[in-house]
Formats: sequence, C-alpha cells, structure tokens
Amino acid sequence: MPFSTSFAPISHRTSASDPVSCTGGDGPLPVLGRDVRVPLATGGEVTYAALDYAASAPALQRVWDDVAAYAPYYGSVHRGAGHLSQLSTELFEQSRAAVAEFLGCREGDQVVFTRATTDSLNLLASVLPRGTRVFVFETEHHASLLPWRGHEVTYLDAPRTPQQAVATLESALHAAPRGPKLVCVTGASNVTGEIWPVRELARAAHRHGARLVLDAAQLAPHRPVDLRELDADWVALSGHKLYAPFGAGVLAGRADWLTGAEPYLAGGGASRRVVRRPDGGVDVEWHTGTARHEAGSPNVIGAYALAAACRALSEAGFARLAAREERLLARLRAGLAEVPQARVLSLFGADADRVGVLSFVVEGWDSSRLAAALADSYGIGVRDGLFCAHPLLRVLLGADADASGECGAPQDAPREGALDAVRVSFGAGTPDEHVDRLVTAVQALARRGERG
Amino acid sequence: MPFSTSFAPISHRTSASDPVSCTGGDGPLPVLGRDVRVPLATGGEVTYAALDYAASAPALQRVWDDVAAYAPYYGSVHRGAGHLSQLSTELFEQSRAAVAEFLGCREGDQVVFTRATTDSLNLLASVLPRGTRVFVFETEHHASLLPWRGHEVTYLDAPRTPQQAVATLESALHAAPRGPKLVCVTGASNVTGEIWPVRELARAAHRHGARLVLDAAQLAPHRPVDLRELDADWVALSGHKLYAPFGAGVLAGRADWLTGAEPYLAGGGASRRVVRRPDGGVDVEWHTGTARHEAGSPNVIGAYALAAACRALSEAGFARLAAREERLLARLRAGLAEVPQARVLSLFGADADRVGVLSFVVEGWDSSRLAAALADSYGIGVRDGLFCAHPLLRVLLGADADASGECGAPQDAPREGALDAVRVSFGAGTPDEHVDRLVTAVQALARRGERG
Repeated sequence: MPFSTSFAPISHRTSASDPVSCTGGDGPLPVLGRDVRVPLATGGEVTYAALDYAASAPALQRVWDDVAAYAPYYGSVHRGAGHLSQLSTELFEQSRAAVAEFLGCREGDQVVFTRATTDSLNLLASVLPRGTRVFVFETEHHASLLPWRGHEVTYLDAPRTPQQAVATLESALHAAPRGPKLVCVTGASNVTGEIWPVRELARAAHRHGARLVLDAAQLAPHRPVDLRELDADWVALSGHKLYAPFGAGVLAGRADWLTGAEPYLAGGGASRRVVRRPDGGVDVEWHTGTARHEAGSPNVIGAYALAAACRALSEAGFARLAAREERLLARLRAGLAEVPQARVLSLFGADADRVGVLSFVVEGWDSSRLAAALADSYGIGVRDGLFCAHPLLRVLLGADADASGECGAPQDAPREGALDAVRVSFGAGTPDEHVDRLVTAVQALARRGERG
Repeated sequence: MPFSTSFAPISHRTSASDPVSCTGGDGPLPVLGRDVRVPLATGGEVTYAALDYAASAPALQRVWDDVAAYAPYYGSVHRGAGHLSQLSTELFEQSRAAVAEFLGCREGDQVVFTRATTDSLNLLASVLPRGTRVFVFETEHHASLLPWRGHEVTYLDAPRTPQQAVATLESALHAAPRGPKLVCVTGASNVTGEIWPVRELARAAHRHGARLVLDAAQLAPHRPVDLRELDADWVALSGHKLYAPFGAGVLAGRADWLTGAEPYLAGGGASRRVVRRPDGGVDVEWHTGTARHEAGSPNVIGAYALAAACRALSEAGFARLAAREERLLARLRAGLAEVPQARVLSLFGADADRVGVLSFVVEGWDSSRLAAALADSYGIGVRDGLFCAHPLLRVLLGADADASGECGAPQDAPREGALDAVRVSFGAGTPDEHVDRLVTAVQALARRGERG
C-alpha cells in the first residue's frame, strides 16, 4: 500500500524543491548554530565561530530539517507490522543504499551502520582472519592505530612525502611473510589535513596480496570518497564529522571477511535462529547479511541523518565545496605566514594537497592558553592538545610533545612543560569571516604574547 | 565565564515552566507522532496507534523539544576550547549525572554511555574476569542470552513462578564451582511483560558470591529502577525504548570489573597516552574512568536525549505512569478474555505483576497476517514473530514455534506451518483509544477468521 501521509522521505526530495540546501554562489551551506552568539570576556557578544569541524561538525540545516520531518514518523524497524514500522524499515534500508551510492560501493559490498569511525575500525579488527598481519603508519589517529592490538601489527615510520609513504609500505609488505594482510590508512590527517595517497597505497597493498581500509573520517566531509575509484577494500567514516551528529557511522566494503566472522555484537537482530540443545546448551544460527554485525535495534534516526548528509553534500557538489575550502585554506595559511611566531605543522610540506584542517604552535604561547584566549576574546572554537595522534605529534613537535589526558579526560591538566598544538578545522558551513577572524586573532595574540 | 545565551540546559528547567511535560490528570504524556494519520486498506485515514513500544517507543515531545533546543548549540566535546565545546562537554557530563540519579547509582558506580542494551551487555561480557561463570534463564531476550558465549554459561530452565525462578537460580549457584559468577536477568519480559523478582534474585546471587546485571530495557520505561534498592550490580537500558530514540543506551554499576579490563573499543578518548617504543611497537596507557569504555566521539545528542527522558519520567512520576498503565492493561486483558480464539502467553500466570507488554495468538490466524490486518484495516502498529526470544517462545508455544529470520531480516518469509505470536506493547504516550481500538479489532478479526 502506498504511504500517503504528508511525510516526504529523503528519496522523494530534489534539491530544486529544497531552497535551504544551497545558498547559491560561493557561500557556505547553512548549518545549525550559524547564528549562535556567545559572550566575550572583554564584554559584549559575538557570533560563535566553530572551527573544530575535525572533532565534530555542526548539523547541516538540511540534515536537521530531514530529521525533524521524519521524527514524528519514527517507528520500530524490521518485524513491526504497522505503517510507521514499514516506513522506518524502508527508510533505514534506503539510507543504507544512499550511503552505498555516496561511497561508490561495488556489487556485493556491504554497508554496516556503526556508531562512528572508531566503532567501524574495531568492527573490522574483530573480523580479521586468524593470522592477519596489519600495517599501519605511526601517524594515524589512535582510532586507526590501536584497534589492531592482539593481531601482528607492523607500525610504519612517518613518511615525509606521499611517495615515501608508498615506498615504506611497499618495502614492509615485501618483507612480510605469507598470509592475510591488512593496511589501514587515513585519507586526510586529523592533525595536518594533508591528504594521503590512498589510491597508490591501495595499489601497493593489492600488489602484495594485502587489503586496505581507508579511515575517511576527515576526508569524506571534504572530498569525494569512491571505493571503486580508490580501489580500497573498506572505508570507515563518522556521521558527526559529516554534518550528521546523531550517533551513526559506517563501515562499508567487501563482504567476505564480515560474513566469515562471528558477529560483532551478540544479540537480537544478528541472530537468525536460537535453539536450546537437549544437553542444555544453546545453538545459534547468525545472519549473513549486514544484520550480522548490527545486533540490537538500529539507530534509524542516525542512519537517516547520515544518508541525508551524503545526499546534501553530493547535491552541493564536492568540486564547489573543495574549491571554496581551498580558497579559505589559502587565506588561513597566508595569514599565519605573516605571524613570525607561528609554526604550522606539516609532514608533507607546504605544497601538499590538504583539507580544511591545520595545526600550529605559537612561540611564547602555551597552546591551551592560546585556545582559551581565542574563545574568551574572539568567540572562536578551536581545539588544543595532541588530537588523539600522540606518536604523530611527537614526530611533528619533538619528544616533549605531551598533554596528559588529552584524549577524553578534560579533568586532567596538561603537564608542566608539555608541548601541544592548536588545531583549526572548518568545512562546508564555514563563512569566510570565521577564518579571517581567526587570522586576525592569532596575529594580535602572537604580538601581545601570553603574558601581555 | 557564565554562558549567557538563550539556551537553557536541561538542568535549569523545572516542570513548572514546562507545560508540555504533563497533560495533567490521567492522560498520556505527549509524544511525537501522536497526530500522524495513516491510510486504511478499506479507505480513509485514521490516527496511527503505535502499539510496539517494546521494540521502540516514540520520543516524548519534551525530549524532542530539549534536543531541538540544544541542537544549534551542539559542539565537539572534551578538549574543544570554544564556548559550545565547553557547553556540550558540561551537558554530556550532566546527562551522565542525571542518568545516575535516575538509576539510583551508588557512590563509585560508573555510568557508561553505549549504543543500546545489546551494546551494554556485550560491553559487560567483554570485561568479565577470566573464568567467570554466567547464569542466565533460557527465557531471556537474545541480547541478554547470547553475549556471554565464550564464557562458561549455565542456561537455566524457564521457571513457572517468580519463586521458582529464585529457587532455580539458588540451586544452580549452589552447585557451581568457586570463582567469579554473574547472573544476567531481565526486569520485565519483552514477550509477556511479566516482572521478574530482581531483588530476590540479586539477594540469591550475592548469597553465593555472584553478581547480577539487570536487563532493564523493558522495565525502565514502566517502573522505577533503583540499583541501591534492588541491590543489583549493573543495569543496562536503551534510549530508544525509553522515549529517547537517538542512538544512546547505558551500562551503569560497579566500576571494578570495568576498570580492570581492556577497553571495549580501542581508539581516541579511551587512550590516555600512546608512545612508540624504541623497538617499533606501541605502548598504550588507558583511562580508568568512564572514558575507558567510551572510545570515539561520544553521541552527545543521544546522551542528552536519554537524560531528558529520565528527567521527564521522574517528574511525571512512576506511580502515576504505572497506575495508568495498569488500568490500560486491565482493559486490554479483559477485552482479549472475551475472544475465545485468543490465547495470551504467560509464564507466571494471570496474577503476575506485569508492564504494558502482552503477546497472544489467535486460533485461525497466522500471527503475521493478523498483524498485517491490524495495520491495514485499523491503523494499528504491533509486532509479530518470536521477538528475539526464541527459546522462550518455544516454552510458550511449543516446539513448532519458529519464524525464520524473525530477528532483523525482514526479507525472510516465515516458514510454512511455523508458529509465532502477536505482541502489543504500550507506555506513557498511549491514549486509551489505542488499546480500545486494538481490542475491538482483535474481537472483529477473530470472529471473521483469517479467510473470512
């Protein structure tokens, strides 16, 4: 029976009928919170400049509108027989299909909804065939560096050019014994914003019989990520960095290792048939499709929001988004270049291709105090610390790089003498003024000095 | 610096200033979707009657309003230095405190945000000390039945009275060898709605040196769940069954086993310090607090929604909610008692204490066709199947109970001759009319018969 309520699911919408999806021209996409004003220590208020997109991006207005339109129609999925259950089940699977299209999934690939990139990579780690050897650069975010513990892991030294990254991987794979191998690599660094040579690394991996998973948490919000084109085996990403902060992420790619392993979580949804044995034990037959690794009630609103974001970004067009971002990045870099005390952190050098993520230190300033001053005096939200990439920060800052509890425990104060950095990150919702304000602020604060 | 925007966080609100929190008197709490109309196969439209709360409950209007008010202020948590990051970090930790209060947590207990109950119990399964023996009744939902595989599990036969449940557990614990033990038990059955003697089971467990985790997925939306009062060691619940369908759940309780184990997910947030060793390996120091098991960016909106629901339910008052629900349940049971073809499924008998969850079969009707007829001809949303509790359904329905793919794979058609049931479930947002409509519909359909 056709569903004849006033609710128009995402798939029935077009950008033409959706005036909010695009402001036209070269402006930012509308995001929630774009008009929020915050108080300044110096008195008065100012529009908040969210420059911590790499941690969590605001929801696109359009994503929020889609969620708000759907929320009254939310219902239990799968075996619910009612209209709203049928609708929600359909939307959940349509969301999966929309994400598959966004990521260029191949015939037979699976799209598993997870919590976020961290969850996606832990899921993949849980399905590796016995004896898999994992190769990962020390420059990775902890979410792609650490889930493989318990397997044989080869940590690769930080390369200083994309070409060196490929050569380093080639030589490690060449030296490795036979058996299943997995390479895990980031698409764009969460610290430097620098883009890694994913296609070339995938080619090197495949040449040596290895597979590759792409951590696209930082890449997907800025550039198209196409599994076919990159020839990557899996990709992981997070909704909250993709303008859809509703608790859903994705692992997408090859089905065989996923289907061949025990379910990630044991529970309803993953179990097809459960039978008590005559000896008192219990036998379980698990599902083989995406349900295998999605035990429990799915986060339908999260998945729907993520799909809405994929669609909105595709319709806005990555060519336009990337061009705009490059312009902002050039302004940011030019502005910081005029600050003699500022040092921008980089692995691949000034000419590297990069997304809107940039970390720096300012001589004469403790980074956490600089970040606080940017908030208090300019209404700018950035991040300071080691960005859950401790080994990379030691490569970039030296052995003193440290910030106790930097990852997830705000109660820990930084160690005296510890060195960390400030990160600025932006995206599709960032107006030029936010970047300009940041540049002006850093210039003024650097001149003044921390004790000025 | 005080945060002086127009946003009033949850903790600053009172029910007095919130007219939507309560309709007063004996009415339902306002929920999203209460006015959604759906088409009937017989022509026309009708207000949708959501009677599948046990799978997923609609959002309380107040929860939605809180989420909508917060969404523009959403920001990255933890080391973000900006105002919205500070606000979001504060709200996230306030949400944790609100959930702790709702659940009667003791000094030193931890509240870990998860995805849902399934995730919570899998987390607990991952931290059990080596050699732990787990005791679980065969009557459990698969989410509490299956996560313990890999440990020694004793599956206990279905009891037919609450007293028998306690005696069965006592005797199994008595016969068990020394060593750590865990009992996992549901608070209210997701099939029969019957309430289990949690306090008595916890007492029995503790008498034998065992610990107890309460699966409160179905109990918490209907009755107060207080860890102190129940003397349970942990409790797990889901936001989407507690009127907060935004992808968050909780595991709350004793810290020692949580702190003593490896992190649930490896990644940022959980890692305190990561250092490359001279031999090329990597050393990790993990956090010991709740961050240990919350790797990745937290689902702040999900946690905030869950806390908003806890507060809304507490303010509405469980005494009132439970009294209202008992009245509806009595009407439902009296109505079905007048249908000679209907058989209500029960483990503990007619006098058992129960929440608003009830399953039944109607002679002459295949349950999936009956559920479809309720949707098509009456606009009622119920669920059919074995409700991810296969062994329990075989106890209640006999060995023929089956429904291939009942758990999470809507594409699987039920096997010919398979027996399953219809489940009706409701809660704080259910108006009397929905229950009355269901009774009228079942009476009419039973009279007519499936091929009528």
